Amino acid sequence: MTSMTAPLHRAIQRHPQRVLTIFGERTRTVSESFGRIARLAGALRSLAVDEGASVGILAHNSDRYHEYLLAVPWAGAVINPCNIRWSAHEIAYALRESDTRILFVDEGFVQMISDLREQWDELRTIIYCGEGTCPADLLDFEQLVDEGEPAEDAGRGGDDLYGIFYTGGTTGHPKGVMLSHRNMMASATGSLATLDYVTRNGRVLHAAPMFHLGGLSAWTAGLLSYCTHSIVPQFTPEGVLDAIEAHRVTDLRLVPTMMRMLLDNPAAATADVSCVEQISYGASPISQDLLDRVRKAFPAARFVQAYGMTELSPVACMLSPEDHEVASRRMSCGRAAVHVEVRVVDRDDVEVPRGVVGEIVARGDNVMLGYLKRPAETEAALRGGWMHTGDAGYMDEHGYVFIVDRIKDMIITGGENVYSAEVEAVLAQQESVAHCAVIGLPDETWGERVHAVVVTRAGANVAAEELQKFCRDRIAGYKVPRSIAFVHDLPMSAAGKIMKRVLREEYSRAT
Amino acid sequence: MTSMTAPLHRAIQRHPQRVLTIFGERTRTVSESFGRIARLAGALRSLAVDEGASVGILAHNSDRYHEYLLAVPWAGAVINPCNIRWSAHEIAYALRESDTRILFVDEGFVQMISDLREQWDELRTIIYCGEGTCPADLLDFEQLVDEGEPAEDAGRGGDDLYGIFYTGGTTGHPKGVMLSHRNMMASATGSLATLDYVTRNGRVLHAAPMFHLGGLSAWTAGLLSYCTHSIVPQFTPEGVLDAIEAHRVTDLRLVPTMMRMLLDNPAAATADVSCVEQISYGASPISQDLLDRVRKAFPAARFVQAYGMTELSPVACMLSPEDHEVASRRMSCGRAAVHVEVRVVDRDDVEVPRGVVGEIVARGDNVMLGYLKRPAETEAALRGGWMHTGDAGYMDEHGYVFIVDRIKDMIITGGENVYSAEVEAVLAQQESVAHCAVIGLPDETWGERVHAVVVTRAGANVAAEELQKFCRDRIAGYKVPRSIAFVHDLPMSAAGKIMKRVLREEYSRAT
Repeated sequence: MTSMTAPLHRAIQRHPQRVLTIFGERTRTVSESFGRIARLAGALRSLAVDEGASVGILAHNSDRYHEYLLAVPWAGAVINPCNIRWSAHEIAYALRESDTRILFVDEGFVQMISDLREQWDELRTIIYCGEGTCPADLLDFEQLVDEGEPAEDAGRGGDDLYGIFYTGGTTGHPKGVMLSHRNMMASATGSLATLDYVTRNGRVLHAAPMFHLGGLSAWTAGLLSYCTHSIVPQFTPEGVLDAIEAHRVTDLRLVPTMMRMLLDNPAAATADVSCVEQISYGASPISQDLLDRVRKAFPAARFVQAYGMTELSPVACMLSPEDHEVASRRMSCGRAAVHVEVRVVDRDDVEVPRGVVGEIVARGDNVMLGYLKRPAETEAALRGGWMHTGDAGYMDEHGYVFIVDRIKDMIITGGENVYSAEVEAVLAQQESVAHCAVIGLPDETWGERVHAVVVTRAGANVAAEELQKFCRDRIAGYKVPRSIAFVHDLPMSAAGKIMKRVLREEYSRAT
Repeated sequence: MTSMTAPLHRAIQRHPQRVLTIFGERTRTVSESFGRIARLAGALRSLAVDEGASVGILAHNSDRYHEYLLAVPWAGAVINPCNIRWSAHEIAYALRESDTRILFVDEGFVQMISDLREQWDELRTIIYCGEGTCPADLLDFEQLVDEGEPAEDAGRGGDDLYGIFYTGGTTGHPKGVMLSHRNMMASATGSLATLDYVTRNGRVLHAAPMFHLGGLSAWTAGLLSYCTHSIVPQFTPEGVLDAIEAHRVTDLRLVPTMMRMLLDNPAAATADVSCVEQISYGASPISQDLLDRVRKAFPAARFVQAYGMTELSPVACMLSPEDHEVASRRMSCGRAAVHVEVRVVDRDDVEVPRGVVGEIVARGDNVMLGYLKRPAETEAALRGGWMHTGDAGYMDEHGYVFIVDRIKDMIITGGENVYSAEVEAVLAQQESVAHCAVIGLPDETWGERVHAVVVTRAGANVAAEELQKFCRDRIAGYKVPRSIAFVHDLPMSAAGKIMKRVLREEYSRAT
């Protein structure tokens, strides 16, 4: 039986004195971390956390977040890491639906507690895991660790639920993705078996949020590879550069947006980042321009892209360092990792020929148990034994998968399919355009019409007609945006993706 | 859901034209192998092989063995690879117990068929997978492949039974170890995630028998790593050296006995083996002397030791190339691989302190489903959720596991525990001793007494008394063999282990 706590049991056998976590000035050895986790688990049990109960956390990254991630299963319970970008309303929804009555909170979210309690009256216990003084009415993390009786590991593993991960908030209704111990370990072990996903015995920097599977998967792979975890509360270019230098970080996990912010920071030019051996990223491919810039800044680093989603725990495809040397492959999200089978299918779930766009589906031990309390949506997503990703894409003759769009971001206008990604790529070529998003809006005549939302570069000035003409010269008429809105910012998710649902809602209302 | 056929589905997506198997002059691409397996599976279905039925093979290694290993699950059935060293009596026992009615046989075992049928009258279908002409009353493998309708993969995986692997024959009653698809994949994926168990995209030589998990695990890891499989019918020094040169083999899987035979062959001095990047071995540690010799002969090779057993699918511990540089670690069998937890426990299953000898136990997704039709023995072996290996050993302060002996090879004489391995190690230092085995024999006074069986070096002449004095100078009196027998050969298993049960039976009778 495979278990999320097993790597810690192996680590304590091998090197109890090795540093396991670094957070600011604070370092903890494997032995210290092990003892703290066992005592925190004991404290949770004394708080009457039932076997299989859900225990939430609403906090920025920290070494205590790492301890939470292991102490909760150790106590026999289930983690429920909350999205720190969500509103109190959304978080309360998730806590209520998952019957989460115990919540870890740091100083960044203490002020949200009364709001949460108003909307979820069973939220009985709040544990303060921040750096400051514990507010009077909360339980103190450090006191629980100090005074807890060390517990025996409850021995959860295999198909037992490890965590509930809420996705799809901010607009749609949030869904609780249920991942088992085996799900998590399948993705982590398979990723490491596919290629050197993290450096063995290396030092991994956690700047991406740990509530998200993107960040969490680096942590899990790092545990399996006996890495030291260098943790910063959240991504800031200065914080990341400082941590790299101070802790001689070998592995970075970033999204391309973060890379760009890192490179744009003046300190990047002078920081000693020669220790970085690998940069893994997800969420979107890396452009040639960005890759060139990152390579120059991090001369010793290999690049790995991973593609997946929460429901896949999260990895499905991987693009190797060697693949990054071939321009045509770099726009793909890689090939199926060794723990997954990947196919592209049509609406009837029949596999389509190579090069033909369809929905990307995947199966393997990393596929979620299901959505909490949503049997119909679970069945739809997992029909035929395959996880339907909702991503439209195609596979080439060598097994490389190219994401074209989200299935639901595909616009059907006058019976024609328009991939918003294609239109966005054309718009992005126009010199005045900094960022853009293309969506479909309801239209009486055409069913949907193509609408673009554009952020212009600082100082640039461009009319909608000019952009439309630019598009018309390059793509078919039905793909050209019929309307264009100019904005200052696009709404971004915590994972660095543009939230098109927000745009769709906003502009549908405006119509 | 994880499946043994998944690697082939991924390979056909990635590189259909890459060579997958080489056997003598015959090479097959991924695409050819895929087509042959689908048609062989179709042929098996047309032979009314039921879902979950057991299909045997009694043959030396070949590319057809590889096709059998995948076509059987593809058809929805279960493999049952027979030990080619066993007698017809033992094989018939295994076929009968597992209700195996279809058997693949090559030219080496055709003459055993009538014996088998006499003892197992439901053995209805024999498929000839040899190189010569198919005997008249058998089905021809190539004809089945030629004429079979390609079948869809039956989609077995996860906890579905992949194979029944009989162990413990020749003396004890054979037991059918039931391994699932997940068991096999857990060991292979975990081994690759732990270290570079085989070279990715490399060329693996299969000289160890493929019916045995030792050989089979190299094949499974090779499938996951998109290797070419170079296959020789069985281990011969000339055959192995020829294949290495002809196919530019990168990975060798051997037991120390095979290494020695390879080095002793005159052709080893002149063969170009510079292509060999990795040598993995099992069954016993490698001595300094042997390691030095192998290093000289294979200057580019890294060394990996894997420790495990059939019931663990098979890998539990691994000794890395770096570990081979430290003399004290080289006598260990390594540390727990990332898919396993390993402990040393006493008779009450309580973990013992580091350095104290106890029984080695392991758990993980690689632990067998159980012994076929032996619920009591299954329960005993898997009590408390841990596989009890029957190996006595200890773990040091850095998690390295040292095997001292088989639990059942431990001799209790006059109330004292004697580890036969310790006595053997002392005897082996005496210049006249080539090989030796130490066993316990029933004794009225002492309960058991220590007995040694010795093979002397060519031309050497030594008396029992002389060896006893040699021992007495080095170990406690109660450990010194009370009797010594001189023989020409020690009985070896197919996996290269001395079969002490055979010796025990022989000398117990003689007592």
